[in-house]
Amino acid sequence: MSHIDLGNDLPGIAGLTAYRPETGRPISELVEVLLRGPGGLPRGERELIAAHVSELNSCTFCASSHAAFAAAQLPADHVRSPKLDALLAIAAAVVESGRAVTPELVAKARENGATEAEVHDTVLIAAVFCMLNRYVDGLGTWAPDDPAAYAAMADRIVNHGYTAPR
Amino acid sequence: MSHIDLGNDLPGIAGLTAYRPETGRPISELVEVLLRGPGGLPRGERELIAAHVSELNSCTFCASSHAAFAAAQLPADHVRSPKLDALLAIAAAVVESGRAVTPELVAKARENGATEAEVHDTVLIAAVFCMLNRYVDGLGTWAPDDPAAYAAMADRIVNHGYTAPR
Repeated sequence: MSHIDLGNDLPGIAGLTAYRPETGRPISELVEVLLRGPGGLPRGERELIAAHVSELNSCTFCASSHAAFAAAQLPADHVRSPKLDALLAIAAAVVESGRAVTPELVAKARENGATEAEVHDTVLIAAVFCMLNRYVDGLGTWAPDDPAAYAAMADRIVNHGYTAPR
Repeated sequence: MSHIDLGNDLPGIAGLTAYRPETGRPISELVEVLLRGPGGLPRGERELIAAHVSELNSCTFCASSHAAFAAAQLPADHVRSPKLDALLAIAAAVVESGRAVTPELVAKARENGATEAEVHDTVLIAAVFCMLNRYVDGLGTWAPDDPAAYAAMADRIVNHGYTAPR
């Protein structure tokens, strides 16, 4: 049960954005631009970074959701490139602390073909999920057990995005 | 020196929102609603929560900025109420992990007069600064040494807010 009375029974972030739409709207817009906006990494790889960070932060709702969103947007035979591995290492450092991102980690990503914008977006995606994981778990929201619930969310996100009305 | 070429020499978050306005705009809007929007805690106390979280995360730019913004908006004889102390304890738990926020911490805040909305906003302010601290330090932005720089920022924020053009 959530720590405060949200006035709805929606799971995870959905219950929170419905409770406080004034903050929910810019949060949804930020996630839409970062995970689905033009340019940058393939959408499925951006979702992988979000899922990886959420897993490291032990946030069940976000890890399950974004793993499903990644799977829905990556080919079945997707293999992590050395570039994606280097970006995931930067994301893992961000989970620990912003100060854990070293010039060496950034150089490794660049050597493997990452652009300045991709390094930027990786740091920001990781930072945004450090926020969302804490928001979702800090207010004690619930997470569905049934994988079908996450598959249904994936269908909605892939086809309509993060800012579409629920 | 920042880890990527931002194309500007602005310090901290300012350099980042100028580099990537598509993400900068919703971030500024979120901070404006949370730290200056109607209702809730006095603005100076919201800034204290932001400064406290940034200090715990060792983010020099954010801790110095928001301490200055708090000081500019609190009376000189401001004393932390038991309610504010209880909310700061929730914020400190969020820094560790969303899962560190216990029903006991929330009950303590409620016993000292915190509303549901104030608990919500405290968790979200703390979570947002866990993002901003990681974003600012994860890209290696610079922070001014001169306190006068933060006083000038405080003057701008107090009078014009977070979404005004720079």
